[in-house]
Amino acid sequence: MSQLTGIAASSGIAIAKAYKLAIPDLSINKKEIANIDQEIDRLLKALDVSKSELEKIKEHARTSLGDEHAEIFSAHLLVLSDPELINPIKDKIETDNINAEFALNETAQMFIEMFENMENEYMRERAADIKDVTKRVMAHLLGVSFPNPALIDEQVIVIADDLTPSDTAQLNKKFVQGFTTNTGGRTSHSAIMARSLEIPAVVGTKDVTKQINEGDTIIVDGIEGKVIINPSAEEIQTYQKKQEDFELQKKEWAKLKDEPSVSKDGQHVELVANIGTPNDVEGVLNNGGEGVGLYRTEFLYMGKNELPTEEEQFDAYRSVLEQMGRDKPVVVRTLDIGGDKELPYLELPDEMNPFLGYRAIRLCLERDDIFRTQLRALLRASTYGNLKIMFPMIATLDEFRQAKAILLEEKDKLIQEGTEISESIEIGIMVEIPSTAVIARQFAKEVDFFSIGTNDLIQYTLAADRMNERVSYLYQPYHPAILNLVNNVIEAAHAEGKWAGMCGEMAGDAIAIPILLGLGLDEFSMSATSILPARTQLKELSKEELASFKDQFLSMGTADEVEAFIREKTNQ
Amino acid sequence: MSQLTGIAASSGIAIAKAYKLAIPDLSINKKEIANIDQEIDRLLKALDVSKSELEKIKEHARTSLGDEHAEIFSAHLLVLSDPELINPIKDKIETDNINAEFALNETAQMFIEMFENMENEYMRERAADIKDVTKRVMAHLLGVSFPNPALIDEQVIVIADDLTPSDTAQLNKKFVQGFTTNTGGRTSHSAIMARSLEIPAVVGTKDVTKQINEGDTIIVDGIEGKVIINPSAEEIQTYQKKQEDFELQKKEWAKLKDEPSVSKDGQHVELVANIGTPNDVEGVLNNGGEGVGLYRTEFLYMGKNELPTEEEQFDAYRSVLEQMGRDKPVVVRTLDIGGDKELPYLELPDEMNPFLGYRAIRLCLERDDIFRTQLRALLRASTYGNLKIMFPMIATLDEFRQAKAILLEEKDKLIQEGTEISESIEIGIMVEIPSTAVIARQFAKEVDFFSIGTNDLIQYTLAADRMNERVSYLYQPYHPAILNLVNNVIEAAHAEGKWAGMCGEMAGDAIAIPILLGLGLDEFSMSATSILPARTQLKELSKEELASFKDQFLSMGTADEVEAFIREKTNQ
Repeated sequence: MSQLTGIAASSGIAIAKAYKLAIPDLSINKKEIANIDQEIDRLLKALDVSKSELEKIKEHARTSLGDEHAEIFSAHLLVLSDPELINPIKDKIETDNINAEFALNETAQMFIEMFENMENEYMRERAADIKDVTKRVMAHLLGVSFPNPALIDEQVIVIADDLTPSDTAQLNKKFVQGFTTNTGGRTSHSAIMARSLEIPAVVGTKDVTKQINEGDTIIVDGIEGKVIINPSAEEIQTYQKKQEDFELQKKEWAKLKDEPSVSKDGQHVELVANIGTPNDVEGVLNNGGEGVGLYRTEFLYMGKNELPTEEEQFDAYRSVLEQMGRDKPVVVRTLDIGGDKELPYLELPDEMNPFLGYRAIRLCLERDDIFRTQLRALLRASTYGNLKIMFPMIATLDEFRQAKAILLEEKDKLIQEGTEISESIEIGIMVEIPSTAVIARQFAKEVDFFSIGTNDLIQYTLAADRMNERVSYLYQPYHPAILNLVNNVIEAAHAEGKWAGMCGEMAGDAIAIPILLGLGLDEFSMSATSILPARTQLKELSKEELASFKDQFLSMGTADEVEAFIREKTNQ
Repeated sequence: MSQLTGIAASSGIAIAKAYKLAIPDLSINKKEIANIDQEIDRLLKALDVSKSELEKIKEHARTSLGDEHAEIFSAHLLVLSDPELINPIKDKIETDNINAEFALNETAQMFIEMFENMENEYMRERAADIKDVTKRVMAHLLGVSFPNPALIDEQVIVIADDLTPSDTAQLNKKFVQGFTTNTGGRTSHSAIMARSLEIPAVVGTKDVTKQINEGDTIIVDGIEGKVIINPSAEEIQTYQKKQEDFELQKKEWAKLKDEPSVSKDGQHVELVANIGTPNDVEGVLNNGGEGVGLYRTEFLYMGKNELPTEEEQFDAYRSVLEQMGRDKPVVVRTLDIGGDKELPYLELPDEMNPFLGYRAIRLCLERDDIFRTQLRALLRASTYGNLKIMFPMIATLDEFRQAKAILLEEKDKLIQEGTEISESIEIGIMVEIPSTAVIARQFAKEVDFFSIGTNDLIQYTLAADRMNERVSYLYQPYHPAILNLVNNVIEAAHAEGKWAGMCGEMAGDAIAIPILLGLGLDEFSMSATSILPARTQLKELSKEELASFKDQFLSMGTADEVEAFIREKTNQ
């Protein structure tokens, strides 16, 4: 047996055999062929097998994941029936007397390069489709097996370099017990998805795909961030015990589902959840969430060819609000697109530094047609629950004033049209840009609440792209500068009688929770599955005692000092 | 006549005829040709004319600008003599019976694409060479004129979309009276270069290349950021007067060359200059600089194929220190490469967000071979003047501690080798990352000084790439968050008896100077040509009065409010 260490991305223990999602070796040679008809026949067969596989996967995706997820496979099927792609391959085989693999590769490459060089983002996406789909055909020509995550029908642990959102969308929770990847961190898409699916996961292992062979028995320890390969019988026993303990622990946590979130010294805070779609609400309620602290509305805009209509949005917002009920607040973040989140149909410009670019509120204030549609849908849904609206990426007071003015304009219009709108909608902002954290005192006079977005705040404050492995060591939630900014935001809110929450990954972190409690944070928004562990931890923490340490950790020099101090004070 | 508005990038008035640096229309058609020999002859002639032009330009660059600048043209000449490029063009003409333009374009495109797709940065640079050089040949084939900035031999104003560093390197100050561009801002390369050459410039006019025709008479008003096209006789008179006034003003300023920099209420601050090479020192002294506040050492590393040796660096550092003398301090910034400044021979990885990536001290701590060579050269030069060393892009105390430890190690080694080292070298940091500005108090205990780099600090604090036109409105030096961070850094320094300077563009800005004086900034480092105007302005400002406004502008909500307030208080 051997062992790998990575980042514990989603809690729990999984034991099962390995299923490698790696693309097989598809390297090819140019060969002269004797029999042209036979070669064309090979090509057509490979195309047929690929098509019938894709049909199966599409059907599977439709029933288990919904129509939207199935759409991508329709696009792939179209590619495989396109004579503009198929005929040149046949011609090449005939004219040049060469093997089907070489002809396929030459032709596909030509189309891929052509599409990739187009200005239009939508056409560039077509290059990705052709790439994806010709890999499958190539695998059949070469007689090597090609991974189909959607067709997994036995208990496995998925091993991959990284999982794209479309990969994860295909995973069936019934069979996929856990996963582990070479790349990624706690805030990568695959990690967030694992927590939302409640599947144990270890990411960022660097070379798990090299170390593990298909069919190896694997243990994924999502609690400590370990992956054990071909464990001994004793080890399996040890981990089965650990798995049982974790299940027991979960049952213990579950007892707190309907309990309030209260510290040892009787101080209440709000433990709420981050969600992406109305489907996530069930998980929030099952995990005892007291509300939704961040509803990311981007999913409504993604994976399609046009903007969502006002009605589509209204239905989604209403569904979330109704499911959460009148007592549980729902904080909706308006569209945060751009940066690493692209929408092909908007044809956004390519940027040198997308994280420092045209995104979120910057885009919404310019494209106010998009913004107004979303605000109207939100306002109309407001009577179905306890809605709060917040704007992302606010860097100046002017931006907030403009966004709020547009919101109030749409509200007036709707009222004049006779639509009923809630009169108690709070309007707040994400604090994720350093400038806003620094002058929180000025903002606090005008906003109803703050929600600190630590994922971005940390990367801007330390000027380090958290997705860039070479500088990811600078993604330091406990950096004293981050703690001072967070403190500044909370103090500013309280000075004006407003509340301050946090919706970054940091809000659910066991080291950060005592710090944030000591700083007086009012609302902690996290992955739904982190809520019950956080509520459990909270019962052991004294807010008053932690507040008395505040001056000490705010004046420390490094993140390591802070962490060591908190570990000592909270016995972690 | 018509008028355009842009950004005043370099002060002064220029009146001359337009010289367009725009690439002419080089679009081509495919034509069948009758006489192959004649067509090949046309190609060879176009190649010959291009080569003799390049020889001339190279000679010219060598004499007027130095060997380094001439090197790029040697590379271009090599391309034009390369049979691997020329033979396929000839073959194409012969085999396909097509015109030379089409054959040249096809062949060049193939090579460009091939090189551009290579992993190796150095090879990708070759694609740029081929692109550059084949444009010239194409222009000769098409019989259209091609701009040669290095060959300008009459008084002109250069009009361009943007000026690359290599374009500006070719400009001869004797003939080029001013320039104006479509793109760029006050901190773009071309703007910085214009100030260093003391040529009036207006950048960011959006479409000056469209509005102006070759030979039009142009006025560039680098004081107010205006460009006047084909002015009337009266207008020319008005501007000649303005030009004379400006020259008189410059003479007035010049009287302050050897005066101290003192406010109306007798408070002294240091007015020092930013430089890039030893050649810039003359301008610093001529403009009455009290020292060098930022010596950017990147130029030593750029425009060549390998790292500079310890000796090369020692010579440059020694030259700057000797020229400045023992009384005038020289603050040298260690290598700040990466981000938008690439070194082909280092083969840095492509990054999604280079401004948030692997650069400056992050790179130096990992590639400490490069770092140690630079530190040794600096230490050895330290006895020739008043050297201070600062590290760029410091985000954590750990980074500063590591960098300082490496510096002290090299110092010990040199001392053991018997080399004399100054015992009074101050070691400081650039404050250009928000985290460092926020916990300046912690840093102040360990560093000897701070130098605030506002160009980066502003873009990180507002999360806006200053080079990205869509978000450049967020590059707000007077944003109250920036002022609060600057204030925090100055207070932290003074609390520990240290000094705080600023070496971003903001330090020489007429609105910012009163603010910074009021906040207690000790050292203002700017373009050499801004020093005398700043010294003049300073004489009218009362530090005590401005300090009394501090609480007011620090608690303002927006940059506009701050600007209006300062304008009112200082009659600007």
